[in-house]
Formats: sequence, structure tokens, C-alpha cells
Amino acid sequence: MDWNGLYASRMSRVVASDIRERMKLLAQKKLIHLGGGLPDPAIFPYQAFADASAAILGDQQRARTALQYAASEGHGPLREWIVGYMASIGVPCALENILIVNGSQQGLDFVGKLLIGAGDTVMVEMPSFIGALRAFDAYEPTYVAVPKAGDPRPAHGAKFAYVGPDFRNPTGTTMTRAERIELLEMAEALDMSIVEDGCYEKLRYDGDPIPSVLALDIERSGDIDRSRVLYTGTLSKTIAPSLRVGWMCGPAPVIRKLTLIKQASDLATSALNQMIALDVVSEHLDAAVATACQVYRERRDSMLDALSASMPEGVTWTRPEGGLYIWVTLPPHIDGAELATHALTDHGVSTISGSAFYPVDPQRNTLRLSFSMIPAEDAREGIRRLALAIEKTPARV
Amino acid sequence: MDWNGLYASRMSRVVASDIRERMKLLAQKKLIHLGGGLPDPAIFPYQAFADASAAILGDQQRARTALQYAASEGHGPLREWIVGYMASIGVPCALENILIVNGSQQGLDFVGKLLIGAGDTVMVEMPSFIGALRAFDAYEPTYVAVPKAGDPRPAHGAKFAYVGPDFRNPTGTTMTRAERIELLEMAEALDMSIVEDGCYEKLRYDGDPIPSVLALDIERSGDIDRSRVLYTGTLSKTIAPSLRVGWMCGPAPVIRKLTLIKQASDLATSALNQMIALDVVSEHLDAAVATACQVYRERRDSMLDALSASMPEGVTWTRPEGGLYIWVTLPPHIDGAELATHALTDHGVSTISGSAFYPVDPQRNTLRLSFSMIPAEDAREGIRRLALAIEKTPARV
Repeated sequence: MDWNGLYASRMSRVVASDIRERMKLLAQKKLIHLGGGLPDPAIFPYQAFADASAAILGDQQRARTALQYAASEGHGPLREWIVGYMASIGVPCALENILIVNGSQQGLDFVGKLLIGAGDTVMVEMPSFIGALRAFDAYEPTYVAVPKAGDPRPAHGAKFAYVGPDFRNPTGTTMTRAERIELLEMAEALDMSIVEDGCYEKLRYDGDPIPSVLALDIERSGDIDRSRVLYTGTLSKTIAPSLRVGWMCGPAPVIRKLTLIKQASDLATSALNQMIALDVVSEHLDAAVATACQVYRERRDSMLDALSASMPEGVTWTRPEGGLYIWVTLPPHIDGAELATHALTDHGVSTISGSAFYPVDPQRNTLRLSFSMIPAEDAREGIRRLALAIEKTPARV
Repeated sequence: MDWNGLYASRMSRVVASDIRERMKLLAQKKLIHLGGGLPDPAIFPYQAFADASAAILGDQQRARTALQYAASEGHGPLREWIVGYMASIGVPCALENILIVNGSQQGLDFVGKLLIGAGDTVMVEMPSFIGALRAFDAYEPTYVAVPKAGDPRPAHGAKFAYVGPDFRNPTGTTMTRAERIELLEMAEALDMSIVEDGCYEKLRYDGDPIPSVLALDIERSGDIDRSRVLYTGTLSKTIAPSLRVGWMCGPAPVIRKLTLIKQASDLATSALNQMIALDVVSEHLDAAVATACQVYRERRDSMLDALSASMPEGVTWTRPEGGLYIWVTLPPHIDGAELATHALTDHGVSTISGSAFYPVDPQRNTLRLSFSMIPAEDAREGIRRLALAIEKTPARV
């Protein structure tokens, strides 16, 4: 039986992620892993999880709710809590503006299903979050770049622009308030929508929070139901990834369409997970965010110090105000993918080549580093090894 | 902002499920609900869930695994257990033949993503499981009927035939061994694949198990990696739906493609849920299946007795050997949708019109009943009310 002849055309776009493949090497010893990007499991609120699940499964009525099918739109009390959370970050909304999904990755898949027909134009930042590109790829879009600050406004719009305004993956950079307003004005002029990935919003280590693009749009239009922004949020970065609990927030008619997509895609997110999530965030979100910010701020600082101490002339990097990533630009003659291979095999340090984060026209002399799991001494040693690998890279002919 | 102009063409096919809409009425009192189809939460293994989650979250090492991202293919030890389970039902396979998904509904969505291009032909039983039709609809197929026993073999194939061989939703009927072999021979002749929904396989109340289509194909070809069958299984019907743990089993190269789809769709199923599932099934699956079969067998018998006692001349129904559903065929002049409305509003009994289960050319004089949640006295009273509603339906002009 030759299945290859049966695959839908979209499957030519569905390929393995360099990162996930490379992460299989994580089991190897003595390597220093600067590529990963997972939240540090040492800071997950374990006792809160144990208490929540014991309380839910130990109560007959709650246990019945936890194990039966949940509503496709999500567990009502968790959606209520998210309404309050969104209000606290400048997004007044109601229950009908919230859909629960299995982490924001599922939200990105649903965006593709909702909006992308084969060949439709989608604007993404270059580079962009690889998980979003993989989710959208299955719907066969054509990608164009979100204009950078100072670029002229494009003549043609797109179905939507996908942006990560705060400390985004992979660059760690943040859009200014003025850039967010300009994005909204461009979207209005070109009559397109905006998909905002809010997954790192709470992981800010310096500076003042900037309102989300959705919050700024509501300031302008006065009503989320008139907004052109669809927002995805998650508990994966602040509480724990394997809850697989995230949400989408946007105009009620769009959320209703997305709820139908949710129903057809996997019926509903686990009620048990949603109830555990609610118990944990109700009591522990602020403390979990404070712990994460303290731990990750120190690690960011250690890695930035190590970069300053070791990197040779001609290498530059971003200084993120939050999130988990630093983006390194190498001298133009160095290919990040070749360097990553050479650094891994000859110098025992893993990184991620930047090319994978571009859907088209990769800027090859780039790398993504993550500091989330790296103690100070590993950062020093890992960056020292990386610097050595860079210095030993011959100029290309 | 007018989002309607932005939706992908597939969204015209993504519509609300009559059943899920109707289930909103479940909160109303005094109604008798013969339509639902949910597993009965009274028989879920609550203590096993409480013990499993306490053991996992109380062990530092297991808790770290449970809360961090799982591998996209699923939690290794659970996949190992499923390999053993599949072997026990006549499907020898290996780890690389198993992908964990969020219940078999997600498996059906992935089938659509993997195989259906817009306009591709898909064969389904008429009537068919509405959740499968909704999942496939998003990929814009053209539906044709799987030939019934005795029908001539069609001249043209399809990407795949989707079948539920055992006590399928909505009819409760079971394919004979000969019908399964004929299906495989047709698929071979037309060079198409088969998607087999095994979700009710363990809920057999009478008669001997018949090997799955996948098992029969492996008997013929000798090797799952040469099979044309992709199988979906789930713990939703035997353990509890809100685990959201199901699996796909098929040729390794197809499972690898589906793993990429899983990664792009929601990264991975919750590790916590997978670990709880493994603990529960390892110790309690046989007992849970035995309890479910005992409870549902009695309810099926009560409802069949009630139908015999109350239904007027000209009404026929299936006698399922397992599963949760009975399919009722009304006299030709009665429209099931009109009857369902009239029975609900005037007689206080809810059922599901059969029309929704046909992607094309609905046979309108049909209803689906479920006995899974209905004690004997409610079955008697509910069927009595339904019979009254049928008797009061005027002949159509």
C-alpha cells in the first residue's frame, strides 16, 4: 500500500521541526544546551497541583464534572477567571469572548483553520515563532513580512498579521507602544486582522508593561466585539506546559466560529486539566509569575554577561526585557546552521540555527539562544564554547 | 471590522452540531433524555483517578515529567501499554505504530488534515458518526457512501473509507467478518485506505468479538507497516472522556506524518493525563470494561423491552450487540426532525433526529436513541412518551 499518493497537498508543507529533532539530543551527557527554550521544571508549583487534584478528585460532585466531557467553549468558572485576568491587563471582555484551547499552539492551528485558504497571504514577523509557522503551513499560505519600524506601509494586505509583541520567540525583542499603534493603523488601512500571541506577556523582567495590541485596539474602538485583534494566551509559560491549557480572546462572533472548530477538532479540552488550572491560578499565579521572573531574570543577566565576556568582534545580540530567548547575529560569512552543527559536535554546546524561523529568505548568520534552563556557570562555559566555535569558523569561499 | 470576509472557504462547512446544541436543553428538568450518548459518570473509576494523580504528583521525578511538555508522539510507557493492548486484540505492532491523541476525535481531525484535499472523495457509512463528518468537513471533501452488503462494488475509489465496525454510532449495527473482508478487498481493488474507528470495540454485551479491520488486514498482509488501515482508539468510552486520551495505530511512515501534524496542531497531549491514564488502565481497565458492559447491557435490554412494549406498528429499530445507541426507523411519512421537536416540546422526551448523521441525502424518517444514561423506568416512560408523539404525528400531505 503506497500511502504517499493519498496525502493531501498540504502535507508537502508539513515537515519536521529542526528544534524538536535536535531536542532528541538532549539526552546526551556533558553537552551544554543553549538551544532548548523549555520552561524550567524546577519552578513549577508542584504542591499546588497535588492539592488541586486531590481536592477535585476527592469531591464526588467535582470529580464527576472533571471526568465527563467538558463544553467545547471550556469550563465556565475557568473562563470567568480568564475574563478577570484579561480585564487586569486592559482587555474588558465577557464570557463569550473566551475559548479554552490546549495551549496557545492549538489556538494558532485554529487561526489557520479559520482564516487561511490555500494561497492566502499571511503576514509574519521575520524571523517568527516556528510553532506558528508550522501550524499555518498546513493551510498552505503565502508568507510576507510584517513591515519593520520605518518601512513603508505595504500596498496590499493579508488575511492577518501574526505578531508576538512582548519578548517574542525567537528574537526576545518587544514592540514599542508606537509600533503597536502603527500596526493597528496599517491593519485598519488594509482591512486585515491581527493575531496576537500573548504567551510571554507576564514574563517581564525590566521596564514597564506595554498594553497588548488587543488592549490598544479596544481603547480605540471601545468594544472587543468590534476589534480586529484575536489574542492567544497560555498557562504553559507561567504555571506548567503539560496542563495544555490556553485560551483565545476576541470578538464574540469569531469566538463562536472558533468554538465550532474546537468541537470538530477534539470536542473539548480536558475538564480535569481546566479545573486543576483554575485552582492553581486562583491561589498561586502571582507567586508563580514572581518566581519565574526572578529565576529567569538572573539567567538572562548571566547569559548577557557571558556574551559580553566571550563573544568575538562582529557578533551582536538582543537584550530582551523578558521571555526566554536571546537572538545572536553572527558575522555575515558564518552560516548559523553550519555553526550549530560544528558547535555541537566539536565543542559540546547546542544552539538553534536562526534560519528555521524564517518562512522565506532566511538570514542565515543567526542563532537563537535560550537562558531559561541555564545556570550561570553553564552560561559562562556554554557561551565560551560557542565563542570558540565562532572563532574557529573559516571564512566561506 | 467585518471578519466574515476573512474566513477561509472551509468555514462554510463548519456548522453547529444539532446534538451539541440540543444538549444545552439537558439542564431542563422533568425531561427524559434519550438522545445524549454520554458515558455514565456513575461508573467512572474515581478512586483509581485519585490514587493515580496522588502517586504521580507526590513523586518528585514523576511530577516533573507530568508537568513538562511531553513528546509529540506521546508518553513512551503509555504507548508501550497500547502496543500490548493492540496485540491483545489481534494487532501485533511496535512503538512506532502508535501516536497518542486527545481522544479519537482528534485522530479524525488529523485524518482529514493528512488525507483530504478540497473536493477529494471520502467514503462514509450512511448514516455516519457526526463527529467524524464535522472533522472531515473542515477539509472540504465530497462524500460518497460505503457500499452496503450486497451492493455492487463502486467503479471509483476514494481517499479512504471511514467505518465503525462495532456497534457504530449512530445505528448500533456491527459489520460481519465477511463484510470486513469485502471492505478490505474493495479497498485493495480501488487502491484506497481505510480509517477504522475502534472506539466502542470493548463495549460488547453479546456474541463473540470479530477481529478489527486492521487485524484482518494484518492477517492478510503479515505486517502492519504494509497495511492500508489506520485505526483510532480511545479511553473515553471505557475509562473517562475528560482524560482526552486516545490513540492512532497504523503503518509507521503514516504515524510519523501524523506525529508532525500533532506537533503543529497542539504540540503534545498532556503528560499528566497520559500518566494518569497509564496508571488507571494498567490496574483497572478490565474491571472498568466489565462494569460498563454490565450496566450498559441492562440498559440496552430495558430500552429494547420498552420499544417492544410501546412502539406502534410500522416502527422498527436495531438490536445492538454493544455500544450506546439504538437506531429507529419511523414510518415513511414521519420526519425525524419534526418528531424530535414535537416529542421534546409536547411530550417531554428528547431524541436526536437521524438526518444530521447523513452528509448527503438524509433518510428523514429516522431517530437515534441512546441508552447509556437511562435507568429502566426512565426508558419505559421515555419510550412511552415517544410512542405517543409518533402516534399523534399526522400523515404529511
